[in-house]
Amino acid sequence: MAGDLTEHPLHQREVLRGNFLHAFRDEVRLPDGSTAQREYIAHPGAVMVVPLLEAADGTLQLVLERQYRYPVQQTIIEFPAGKIDPGEDTWACARRELQEETGYTAREWARAGVLHPVVAYSTEFIEVWFARGLTAGERRLDEGEFLEVFTTDLDQLLAWCRDGQVTDAKTLIGALWLQNMLSGAWPLAWRASDGE
Amino acid sequence: MAGDLTEHPLHQREVLRGNFLHAFRDEVRLPDGSTAQREYIAHPGAVMVVPLLEAADGTLQLVLERQYRYPVQQTIIEFPAGKIDPGEDTWACARRELQEETGYTAREWARAGVLHPVVAYSTEFIEVWFARGLTAGERRLDEGEFLEVFTTDLDQLLAWCRDGQVTDAKTLIGALWLQNMLSGAWPLAWRASDGE
Repeated sequence: MAGDLTEHPLHQREVLRGNFLHAFRDEVRLPDGSTAQREYIAHPGAVMVVPLLEAADGTLQLVLERQYRYPVQQTIIEFPAGKIDPGEDTWACARRELQEETGYTAREWARAGVLHPVVAYSTEFIEVWFARGLTAGERRLDEGEFLEVFTTDLDQLLAWCRDGQVTDAKTLIGALWLQNMLSGAWPLAWRASDGE
Repeated sequence: MAGDLTEHPLHQREVLRGNFLHAFRDEVRLPDGSTAQREYIAHPGAVMVVPLLEAADGTLQLVLERQYRYPVQQTIIEFPAGKIDPGEDTWACARRELQEETGYTAREWARAGVLHPVVAYSTEFIEVWFARGLTAGERRLDEGEFLEVFTTDLDQLLAWCRDGQVTDAKTLIGALWLQNMLSGAWPLAWRASDGE
């Protein structure tokens, strides 16, 4: 099957310590013994939450956000997400980000999986969590954070994914998980958010 | 509905011109009139190809790659993809990357959509293309590019997505498109690759 494609680090140099971006240039040994340079963003990792809201009529609604994303110069539709704080576990991060950005707390949680948004140039991973049994509350946005929270149903979300109104990678992958979770193909292991 | 969340650029500064990464720090005006800094990677955009291979027994196989991705320190399963060359259109890029990385040429192509892998800190977009009517040929890897090409069926790919063997964002989104294209929910508009 797979041969050994590993690239071994030889030397690391910090090339950018910005206010937000932190970048390195490593010299690496390739599988054939030659050397090459690899530049990448160091990232602490993040968590995305797919919040399942039961509407008054019993139908499923999804909690989403609209946020202007400067690098792509567009207002983007996204599931709630945020970076992991130092020492924070991913479930705690999921609970915190959902509450801070949307105000919701959840009775039950399930970890679906993990994704790598840009394997070519960032260490970032995003854990995908589902939340259900939602209770509305006050949100607490970070300073300088402007985002709108809204709800929609699965059919609308999937139509937006198909037609190009949803282009955010993590949110498209949330839709993949939702579709397969709801069909029964990708079951989740729910756990109670006791004492929160 | 949506208020105006636009962030307006005030001043731009290049903070990294690496061999691969190119980063900027912009001062922007926020919706409330205050200012903030935004740091991001400038990227030319990329194309991913979902190559549909008809096996000898008529079943559908997908052409995938295994490639060591240094930033995440793992061998990653991916659909073929690559950056757009200056002045290149995305369909031409799709044809070139499929041939260079896998050796295959395709009789028909369809553009599925576009995704943004990291809206928080990169301008990168990835156009998603499907290819069918494949003919094998010689591949032409870039120097220092080591990747293995292999095929698998849809059930195996989806099981890998569910179980965490596939974590690459663009490839997970390829699976979302595949599943909905094959069910008839997200039809594609195929065009002939004439004269190639």
